[in-house]
Amino acid sequence: MNEKAFHAMSYGVYIVTSWDNGRPVGCTANCAAQITASPATVMVSVNKDNYTNKCIADCGHFALSILSENSSPEIIGRFGFQSSRDRDKFAETAYAVKNSLPVVSDSCAYICCKVVDTMDSPTHTVFLGEVIGADVTSENTPMTYAYYHKVLKGKTGKNAPTYIKESPDEGKYVCSVCGHVYEGNIPFEDLPDDWRCPICSQPKSAFRKM
Amino acid sequence: MNEKAFHAMSYGVYIVTSWDNGRPVGCTANCAAQITASPATVMVSVNKDNYTNKCIADCGHFALSILSENSSPEIIGRFGFQSSRDRDKFAETAYAVKNSLPVVSDSCAYICCKVVDTMDSPTHTVFLGEVIGADVTSENTPMTYAYYHKVLKGKTGKNAPTYIKESPDEGKYVCSVCGHVYEGNIPFEDLPDDWRCPICSQPKSAFRKM
Repeated sequence: MNEKAFHAMSYGVYIVTSWDNGRPVGCTANCAAQITASPATVMVSVNKDNYTNKCIADCGHFALSILSENSSPEIIGRFGFQSSRDRDKFAETAYAVKNSLPVVSDSCAYICCKVVDTMDSPTHTVFLGEVIGADVTSENTPMTYAYYHKVLKGKTGKNAPTYIKESPDEGKYVCSVCGHVYEGNIPFEDLPDDWRCPICSQPKSAFRKM
Repeated sequence: MNEKAFHAMSYGVYIVTSWDNGRPVGCTANCAAQITASPATVMVSVNKDNYTNKCIADCGHFALSILSENSSPEIIGRFGFQSSRDRDKFAETAYAVKNSLPVVSDSCAYICCKVVDTMDSPTHTVFLGEVIGADVTSENTPMTYAYYHKVLKGKTGKNAPTYIKESPDEGKYVCSVCGHVYEGNIPFEDLPDDWRCPICSQPKSAFRKM
């Protein structure tokens, strides 16, 4: 099996959100799709290790905030490489409540759902959600996962369905939180002390030399 | 609910194939996604009215041929707007058998699966497939659904999960098979008799004036 074939599948980039006893929670997702138009139903695959998984199951509702090419990549890092278990990701994220669900403001559309079914896999839960509300919030081009990888040089989180282990080149500096490989023109050692990972905002000290 | 929000979700374009008692069958699909990497598992949503749905259920296996930007749009029309019930779509489609499943040659990668679970919606079946084989067959850029719509001016079939009824402008000519709206510079009436729909290859006579 050539795992690179999976890279040929196309996806968007989403923040899937829910509530944890009144506290907004969420994580980055790419494996989401519409299942049927009547009644409008969508699915999203969420890792069982993600705190948001348990919250969706308990709350019975989730929302997808659809990121655009203009959305800050920092949002992807914040929601993709940190856990709502020990961090309030919404403390620094603008959001609005739509159809009683938290929706990230820096997105181009949102879809709010009531869970109507789940499907189990060894590592992920597939939540099937009947749409209770949806709207377009900007005319910006939706971000594809390919754009995130190619243009933003983003990495795939270990909890993503599409994760494949990579071995960066020796001598390169890699973010220990999100896996971003530093490839800038300035030598890594010469970067200012307040420099931060462009994907997940971790400080310089979070980087390890391969 | 603003249904246009669903258009902000990103997809690839796939031909999902299976066997009908030894005869290869298939249909166009866009709602497919990887669910987990261990073990590698993908899902695809197929309309219950599609003959291929019944064949996947009976055969217990399916393959996804991932189309690229270089794939002929005619394949999308052939597999998306006609039925394997009354037409042998593979009579004019080059294919190879991989992991005992038919795979369309004019694609950039394929993923072969054994059905391990299904999820029911009113109109579509979600097939969850454990991957039994996958490979990359060309370096061409995978086709996104947005590319199919924007660049190829393709239409969405009535059986697709993402179908939204459209009303083309009055006076325009619309293909009765695939819904393609003719917008060329030559007046429709002046097109040569052997002109065919660029999406589904139907003859000029299949077009209706709105």
